[in-house]
Amino acid sequence: MEQIVQQAARQDDGTRPARALVFIGFMGAGKSTAARLLAEQLDLEAVDSDRLLCERFGHSVAEEFAQHGEASFRAAEEELVCELLERAGPGSVIALGGGSVTSKRVRAALEPHVTVLLDVEVQDAWARAHKHPETHLERPLASDKDAFTALYTERRRLYEGLADAILPPTPRQSIAAANPALLNLAGAPSHTKLLWASAASGSYPVFFGEGLARSGFWPVRMARRFLISDETVAGLYMQDLGELHGSVTIQPGEQHKTLSSAETVFSALVRAGITRADQLVALGGGVVGDLAGFCAATYQRGVPVIHIPSTLVAQVDSAYGGKTGVDLPEAKNYVGAYHQPTGVIVDFSLLKTLPAPELAAGYSEVLKTALIAGGDLWERICAEDPLDERMIHACARTKLAIVAEDERDTGRRQVLNLGHTVGHALEALTGYRRLRHGEAVALGLLAALRLSGLSDLRQQVSDLLSAHGLPVTIAAVDPHAVIAAVAHDKKRTGERVPFVLVERPGDVRGGYQVGDRELLHAISELIT
Amino acid sequence: MEQIVQQAARQDDGTRPARALVFIGFMGAGKSTAARLLAEQLDLEAVDSDRLLCERFGHSVAEEFAQHGEASFRAAEEELVCELLERAGPGSVIALGGGSVTSKRVRAALEPHVTVLLDVEVQDAWARAHKHPETHLERPLASDKDAFTALYTERRRLYEGLADAILPPTPRQSIAAANPALLNLAGAPSHTKLLWASAASGSYPVFFGEGLARSGFWPVRMARRFLISDETVAGLYMQDLGELHGSVTIQPGEQHKTLSSAETVFSALVRAGITRADQLVALGGGVVGDLAGFCAATYQRGVPVIHIPSTLVAQVDSAYGGKTGVDLPEAKNYVGAYHQPTGVIVDFSLLKTLPAPELAAGYSEVLKTALIAGGDLWERICAEDPLDERMIHACARTKLAIVAEDERDTGRRQVLNLGHTVGHALEALTGYRRLRHGEAVALGLLAALRLSGLSDLRQQVSDLLSAHGLPVTIAAVDPHAVIAAVAHDKKRTGERVPFVLVERPGDVRGGYQVGDRELLHAISELIT
Repeated sequence: MEQIVQQAARQDDGTRPARALVFIGFMGAGKSTAARLLAEQLDLEAVDSDRLLCERFGHSVAEEFAQHGEASFRAAEEELVCELLERAGPGSVIALGGGSVTSKRVRAALEPHVTVLLDVEVQDAWARAHKHPETHLERPLASDKDAFTALYTERRRLYEGLADAILPPTPRQSIAAANPALLNLAGAPSHTKLLWASAASGSYPVFFGEGLARSGFWPVRMARRFLISDETVAGLYMQDLGELHGSVTIQPGEQHKTLSSAETVFSALVRAGITRADQLVALGGGVVGDLAGFCAATYQRGVPVIHIPSTLVAQVDSAYGGKTGVDLPEAKNYVGAYHQPTGVIVDFSLLKTLPAPELAAGYSEVLKTALIAGGDLWERICAEDPLDERMIHACARTKLAIVAEDERDTGRRQVLNLGHTVGHALEALTGYRRLRHGEAVALGLLAALRLSGLSDLRQQVSDLLSAHGLPVTIAAVDPHAVIAAVAHDKKRTGERVPFVLVERPGDVRGGYQVGDRELLHAISELIT
Repeated sequence: MEQIVQQAARQDDGTRPARALVFIGFMGAGKSTAARLLAEQLDLEAVDSDRLLCERFGHSVAEEFAQHGEASFRAAEEELVCELLERAGPGSVIALGGGSVTSKRVRAALEPHVTVLLDVEVQDAWARAHKHPETHLERPLASDKDAFTALYTERRRLYEGLADAILPPTPRQSIAAANPALLNLAGAPSHTKLLWASAASGSYPVFFGEGLARSGFWPVRMARRFLISDETVAGLYMQDLGELHGSVTIQPGEQHKTLSSAETVFSALVRAGITRADQLVALGGGVVGDLAGFCAATYQRGVPVIHIPSTLVAQVDSAYGGKTGVDLPEAKNYVGAYHQPTGVIVDFSLLKTLPAPELAAGYSEVLKTALIAGGDLWERICAEDPLDERMIHACARTKLAIVAEDERDTGRRQVLNLGHTVGHALEALTGYRRLRHGEAVALGLLAALRLSGLSDLRQQVSDLLSAHGLPVTIAAVDPHAVIAAVAHDKKRTGERVPFVLVERPGDVRGGYQVGDRELLHAISELIT
């Protein structure tokens, strides 16, 4: 046993992770498997605290519980895990028992390491905890389903608070796809966080960190990079991005998210000799992200792209999920493609130079996401918690979970269009000039809440929007023209446009039919 | 038994296939399964000739062989199968024993029905013929592998000659995806043929038939159709396509395969209110197909498209495989996407109005395909067989088999670029005006054969090209400028462009590095 603890402390030889990687999560999440797969890839041996404990006891965890009770087990576990973590260093890969992080000493010992949470749905955890358990994994706390579920809920926040990286519930074999990102995280600036994004057409890492975009850190190394940005953002940050093979900038603003701007980008890519082995870097807000994403999706039928969102709208919403596109004069995002990025870098420090109205505009996407998510995130909005890194991270996680379920917008993903049906119509109608995207979404949310028949919630959202400097009315627009523009909505496949409506925070659904008079009323009350 | 034969003759009630569907193919192809799956979908019972024979014998086919020999078995089989086929009518679904079609009487009895060949690779057939055979399927002819392979080769041409539809080797469960197309075929004009195309991102039917595009037949019914064509082709055939929800035409010629033409199409689609529930119809040659395909791939992030290729180039090559795109001034097909069609209609009668130089241009893609395919197709080229429907069908089949293996051009599919590296460079360099695509490919093929070190084959191909009215030299082009244009090839990911070269007909491979001097020589000898 001692030998194995020693092994966990092997030195970095260059191919090893720079810090130890420690897998945490609920029982049945697949920590032992994930640690083994990662270690195998590095030609190391993973260390499993439950297995070591069994060796020390000379019998199973279940037997230890039965003989000496949980408290005695936890004491022994704390001792062993702290020992492991204190000796662990570069190159160590460790899987911890699900309950070990309930110890404050263990949590402190985790501090210098990279903590990787394997997320799992409670029903999957329950099913797995009962299926072919290895002897040392016989689970004394998995005998009663209600108790199991209560424990799951209690532990969940604890895990999330500790996690440097969160890997979503995925088939176990696809966990290995995240290994390069985990190793990269181990060498990233401290306090960098990672969310692993998975979608039908591809998975990719999202790295979060103050100053990360300017730290020399990249999700994928060893490629030539070509920057696409707008004039404003490029002026502020381009020089900090390190070596670039070339760059092109477009004029800022939604009115420049056009095929003509795309053509400018394509020409620049050809002139720079960009090939499928290179990487585009999209630095900017939603406009740059959508446009650069579209260019990446279609240049040579697809090249890799890294997104570095520089606005709140982009950091909480548009940088994730692979929807790319440009506007036509008649309608927003009417030409586009699905193209998942190779990685996303979310650097909160980029928001410091964001003009106040841009920051405000982002708040409407935060609000939208919180209405969809409900629960914790909605409570934080109601409590007027600060719009900080934690909240951006939570919004990103909500969006990624929805995209993981439905990349191509055939079902669940449609809820992300909450407020966007009327919002997009207002943007198109006002020539993409009068309203920021987030401002249009603010008005669209109010229309959607009216159509949902939720007056009180509409009032609450209206007050929150106003408090954040967002418009709750618009002047000099013809409501009938808005209705005509709504008819261009991409969701329409029949005679009528389906709406996304709110039952209550946390219960948002698509596919509602809305009457002409209701719609006219919901739009008219926005117009002064 | 008599009852089941009767059942095979049930009348059409509207949901039933208009003609009987009869599955043929080698043992182990999965005929019984495919027939059962199709019949289940129609709430019918499939008829299996081998199973009925066993019932008649009162023992297995193997036992019948052992007791009375193959000749006696074949006589009984012929009797039963002819009885089945004569009584079969609308609504019948029948699977025939692999050897039954060796009987001339059986082949004649198949005439009024729709014959569906389930293609299978010989190694899969061998493996399946030995895995869990049902009792009645114990295969007396599957005991010796060499004899089995010889029989497979012998039967293959027989099956292909009889087939109205060919379903490629696919996992058995995905055969069911072709069922709607098979039912559609049963109601199509007689002599219509079907190839089922499968690729990673989707599968679709390709229907072949003289006059098919003007017969009112559509691969998918019940949708609004919007036509995209060029002015010339639209003028000839648009009025024969039946009801259209709208149309847009572009100017003919590769020089109009641009983002600007795409923008024209997008605007027309918006004005016509086209949604994801509608269908685009691309009627034209390679330019229209690539452009309309790109618009279909990106309008509202993807709408369905039916291709009706009207040139030889398009009918033998470009209408299949889902590569779509437009040219940039600097390089061909530089902006695009993969987007498989919903269906393809190949109507040979459309070629009757094709100008002679256009028909000639198509011959270079036929030659390319034959060099890749080798075998029968290459022999037919050497024998100067007529460039007829059979040859177009064979070319389409070759291309579809390659795409099925590698949709995204990461390996095998690259062989389809034989002759295109230098060909595309010549097209771009001459502003897409001087050379038809096929003419550029003719020159590119000669360059590729020189680079392959095959002087005799190059001479043979050069003679064939000349005989078909294609250029084998080009005047007033700077070879160094061609080399510079070659460097824009999309296949390039490193310093040098990889070439597709020929080892011998039937053995074509990608990824070759070519020296500067060799390339200069291969290009210079094309220039007069």
